[in-house]
Amino acid sequence: MIVVMDAKASARDISDVIARIRAMGFDVHLSEGKERTIIGVIGRGRPIDREQIGLMSGVQNVMPVSHPYKIASREYHPDDTLIPLNGVQVGGTDLAIIAGPCSVEDRAQIIEIAHAVREAGATALRGGAFKPRSSPYSFQGLGEEGLKYLADARAETGLPVITEVMDPQAVPLVCQYADVLQIGARNMQNYTLLHAVGESQHPVLLKRGMSSTIEELLMSAEYILSHGNMRVMLCERGIRTFETATRNTFDINAIPVLKQASHLPVIADPSHGTGKWEYVESVSLAAIAAGADGLILEVHHDPENAQSDGRQSLKPEKFAALVEKTRQLAPIVGRQFPVRETVR
Amino acid sequence: MIVVMDAKASARDISDVIARIRAMGFDVHLSEGKERTIIGVIGRGRPIDREQIGLMSGVQNVMPVSHPYKIASREYHPDDTLIPLNGVQVGGTDLAIIAGPCSVEDRAQIIEIAHAVREAGATALRGGAFKPRSSPYSFQGLGEEGLKYLADARAETGLPVITEVMDPQAVPLVCQYADVLQIGARNMQNYTLLHAVGESQHPVLLKRGMSSTIEELLMSAEYILSHGNMRVMLCERGIRTFETATRNTFDINAIPVLKQASHLPVIADPSHGTGKWEYVESVSLAAIAAGADGLILEVHHDPENAQSDGRQSLKPEKFAALVEKTRQLAPIVGRQFPVRETVR
Amino acid sequence: MIVVMDAKASARDISDVIARIRAMGFDVHLSEGKERTIIGVIGRGRPIDREQIGLMSGVQNVMPVSHPYKIASREYHPDDTLIPLNGVQVGGTDLAIIAGPCSVEDRAQIIEIAHAVREAGATALRGGAFKPRSSPYSFQGLGEEGLKYLADARAETGLPVITEVMDPQAVPLVCQYADVLQIGARNMQNYTLLHAVGESQHPVLLKRGMSSTIEELLMSAEYILSHGNMRVMLCERGIRTFETATRNTFDINAIPVLKQASHLPVIADPSHGTGKWEYVESVSLAAIAAGADGLILEVHHDPENAQSDGRQSLKPEKFAALVEKTRQLAPIVGRQFPVRETVR
Amino acid sequence: MIVVMDAKASARDISDVIARIRAMGFDVHLSEGKERTIIGVIGRGRPIDREQIGLMSGVQNVMPVSHPYKIASREYHPDDTLIPLNGVQVGGTDLAIIAGPCSVEDRAQIIEIAHAVREAGATALRGGAFKPRSSPYSFQGLGEEGLKYLADARAETGLPVITEVMDPQAVPLVCQYADVLQIGARNMQNYTLLHAVGESQHPVLLKRGMSSTIEELLMSAEYILSHGNMRVMLCERGIRTFETATRNTFDINAIPVLKQASHLPVIADPSHGTGKWEYVESVSLAAIAAGADGLILEVHHDPENAQSDGRQSLKPEKFAALVEKTRQLAPIVGRQFPVRETVR
Repeated sequence: MIVVMDAKASARDISDVIARIRAMGFDVHLSEGKERTIIGVIGRGRPIDREQIGLMSGVQNVMPVSHPYKIASREYHPDDTLIPLNGVQVGGTDLAIIAGPCSVEDRAQIIEIAHAVREAGATALRGGAFKPRSSPYSFQGLGEEGLKYLADARAETGLPVITEVMDPQAVPLVCQYADVLQIGARNMQNYTLLHAVGESQHPVLLKRGMSSTIEELLMSAEYILSHGNMRVMLCERGIRTFETATRNTFDINAIPVLKQASHLPVIADPSHGTGKWEYVESVSLAAIAAGADGLILEVHHDPENAQSDGRQSLKPEKFAALVEKTRQLAPIVGRQFPVRETVR
Repeated sequence: MIVVMDAKASARDISDVIARIRAMGFDVHLSEGKERTIIGVIGRGRPIDREQIGLMSGVQNVMPVSHPYKIASREYHPDDTLIPLNGVQVGGTDLAIIAGPCSVEDRAQIIEIAHAVREAGATALRGGAFKPRSSPYSFQGLGEEGLKYLADARAETGLPVITEVMDPQAVPLVCQYADVLQIGARNMQNYTLLHAVGESQHPVLLKRGMSSTIEELLMSAEYILSHGNMRVMLCERGIRTFETATRNTFDINAIPVLKQASHLPVIADPSHGTGKWEYVESVSLAAIAAGADGLILEVHHDPENAQSDGRQSLKPEKFAALVEKTRQLAPIVGRQFPVRETVR
Repeated sequence: MIVVMDAKASARDISDVIARIRAMGFDVHLSEGKERTIIGVIGRGRPIDREQIGLMSGVQNVMPVSHPYKIASREYHPDDTLIPLNGVQVGGTDLAIIAGPCSVEDRAQIIEIAHAVREAGATALRGGAFKPRSSPYSFQGLGEEGLKYLADARAETGLPVITEVMDPQAVPLVCQYADVLQIGARNMQNYTLLHAVGESQHPVLLKRGMSSTIEELLMSAEYILSHGNMRVMLCERGIRTFETATRNTFDINAIPVLKQASHLPVIADPSHGTGKWEYVESVSLAAIAAGADGLILEVHHDPENAQSDGRQSLKPEKFAALVEKTRQLAPIVGRQFPVRETVR
Repeated sequence: MIVVMDAKASARDISDVIARIRAMGFDVHLSEGKERTIIGVIGRGRPIDREQIGLMSGVQNVMPVSHPYKIASREYHPDDTLIPLNGVQVGGTDLAIIAGPCSVEDRAQIIEIAHAVREAGATALRGGAFKPRSSPYSFQGLGEEGLKYLADARAETGLPVITEVMDPQAVPLVCQYADVLQIGARNMQNYTLLHAVGESQHPVLLKRGMSSTIEELLMSAEYILSHGNMRVMLCERGIRTFETATRNTFDINAIPVLKQASHLPVIADPSHGTGKWEYVESVSLAAIAAGADGLILEVHHDPENAQSDGRQSLKPEKFAALVEKTRQLAPIVGRQFPVRETVR
């Protein structure tokens, strides 16, 4: 951290800042210029709250040199974190494909779709039982009943299940049914929930908030990691911009940025990233080409009658075609698409 | 709602859409053009999920004519909602000024600041006991201890207390201490929490999410209102844009837009809206001039040593000067600043 | 400027950076920490291109301490720049109100509106002869004919004329007719045009680009100022954000930020800032309350038949009411509304 | 186009709107609902200015059904437009790779880089002679001298030259030297310039403005196309968002959206889209995977001493490696990388 003192800062201001930094267990290095003094903060420790220093008399600016997250960083953990999922090592050379409907609607629906995506090559099944909806009048999901149907679908197909949890209190319940807990974009900074899933020690897929920076995503991951729960997959799902031609703007840059900054696996969600099924294949291939460790995709056998997100759901045959293209693309970017032997 | 059929839609497509709309209890009006057919949805009812229709075969576009919220709308409730707060009718001609520190740090601090803001003319006291922080390593608030200190400050000064609740489970606890529950920007779409505060029947200050649209803010209010809890104040606190000179971009437009669209009171938060104390006075006066029903401001007697948000906190003397200017401005925009007789 | 060297930078890297900075005429101050070396650049001179240093081997980050503009800054010119306009000193305590139609449509229209706004108290007349339109099929303005009608309106009412110039070649022509040249938002970074209006020595109203930062606005002003043309008014006209309830998001924060950072006058454009006439009064009062030196407003006697921007144009009676409210507000914020004796 | 009348619109309002639409040469279709009347505009013609109707008494909203551009649309021209460039058919199955430095710095530099990119497989050479820089104190390009060096580089390597033109007056000059005129992001809505390059009948690469929507990009293309100049390549180069980890956010979604909406070729610019050379390869491969017709890339043999954009420039060996990966990727997405026989 670097503290830039104001041109008008007094000697007393400067010595106060130095004393405070030292009181926090750091050393300082002084650079006294003609115009101003600059104080370098030296040593390792817990991240300092920049604001505290920034408010001191005579301080013009406080600039971070390193990032505010630690366990999530590649400096802390240089090797890729690998998370096993149905025989795939997510984060390694294997690609993972998570697929299924936005919402679990009934037992038959989720089982039918589970069979379809398994046949096409999916690694895991997604499906929402608790749905965050902007309107209180929209379908809110089947709740625990939906979780049971997901478990039934797993029993039928062998596919592990990933599903969203919205309520900290519901974490133990969802852990009973789900193999991976999903934190939705709207809850990326719901810290009570992050603590709860961290404590659960269950694998987590953490979606980026629709207007969260990459750094904030890693800070939210840090909440989970700080409980010793290292099985966190990061998910880029599009950000909110001025563009309205698509539901969100898929931030393709985030993929190489996250892979460089962190050791955690990165999953791409082109369904939410575009909001329209006709663009999902293009952006899925793009995400893999950019270095994503896998995809999470909405698939529905009858999108027109889906309870939610039908507009962005692929039909099973389109999904199968996309998986096939991904399989061809994989070796070009040093990946493989595992021949999976699912144990039922 | 208007359904625009594709130029290539078949007669069957059109009749299917009509049948579906009718099955939902609405009537239709058909406009058959040379290029395409347009179907108007007629009648009143629960908002329809546009997506469901939008996915049907042959449908090009579905456009809303009315908004998706109902109880929050001025059509539903033409008169301004008034919420009593310490003798002020928030939402009427009275202006409300809520002030206090970002975080409750200790008993002495909150009591000292409470006295200072009361003397300057504040209507209510703010202060955070549970703090949403982007880093797990930052100060997270004093928790219940902080709530107790707030209650002590109320006992000392007579100022009602507004404080944030982050955890649905903690709502009953916070209701014991707080006069108004604050929903923070990061939790604006934490629906579990919205349901919980709706059920509590406690007054609520609902902050706009940093990248939430005005419509989404009203939809989140609708969650609370749908429980019959009508005492909801909306809070504009700045949105996230590309501009980095200020912490957020205070959306001044949102004030007249919200006042026109809804009957609920609108409170402005220039502290978060700018992020720098030196801009807070200008933007506070702007917000009142634009029609806000009140202000919520961060005030700290020692910002340089504040645990959080010191950069945007006014010192008590600056706050007092701002209140004085607000008092002068009030009659220009048809408002009054009540001479308050606080009962101790 | 501060150069943060990478933890892995070699001694040679460091000495190369130092040599380069010295070759540019600056001195350096070295801060050698345990983890990394930091180099402070000392002395005054022309702004350095950060990129050049940033690319050198071993450099992790280059951080500016001062801003990249110079003549536009308040450090360079601490006193407010005053620009005379029809007896008003724009930038001083006087408020300026520039009003008129988006486009000059015909001679009668501009003269009728000029009389109306003059009567209501306007300082100057706006009206577009060259119109930047997103569609090549929309009305593009009357061109030189429009300029002549503007001059006629000035002759009739005594109001000075402000009009947009889009083409560098057309600058001399527009200078013949206009008292103030307007640079539109879309041309804020059209550097050929900025050079041309700088050279013209004519007063300029420079609009902020719809997605330009405040710093970029000041850099564009710097282009004009660097020709010795000091009569530049900055104009906040709303920025592009995710919010769609209004045409743009008026950045109220920009007003105090610009007044603090620069000595140039700041004019607010709530017509474009909101895009809807019903919000213009609220945001106009807000802008004045926040410290703007004046307003530029679209006024049309027949908005429904306006060739452009009718949606955001005030009718003359609404404009007159707004001027009256501004007059009442002015003394609250230390401003005055001059009783003007226009010489006809 | 659909005109939604207000619930309170009078019969007179409705008949006025109908009369006006008919006066414009369109027919109407009326849908009279219980709450409101909706008027469909029927027939084909020049796009109507929505604003004009939107301002009429009793009109609540005017919604477009079709897009405001015409010649740029795929409906108007269903087949892909092919633009020949050095033996490559840009917009067909061939991939085009345009590469070179940000700025032409001297004769030796551009010739050295031209040889390097040609050897690696580039289709054309880029290089700026006129540079739009946010600071008037930064290097502004060599001007005509730079154009001459570009022509020399073409003579030496056979690579066609693409270079930016900023000044409408300079279009004839630049046409003498350049094979393709580039319109930079800051000038995307510089209509005087768009008209000038349209008239020139020279091939154009049109960059998307940093905060322009996809629709606005197509509208700007329409300006050029409306002069009968059909050789327009669209260029996605990243948009401005809240994210600061990268210089811009490359809008990968824009590629399939543009390919679906328009027949014009789409070129991706990952150098500006990311701003950091270490992310350029990932995003280049992503763009090709998403359906781009080619890439434009900044390459410099000595980025650390580049006059501009060194931070995002690839060294020739990294560029060669990227071309090789692109060559491998091409067949997976139905593309080919032509074996080019450049005539020297």
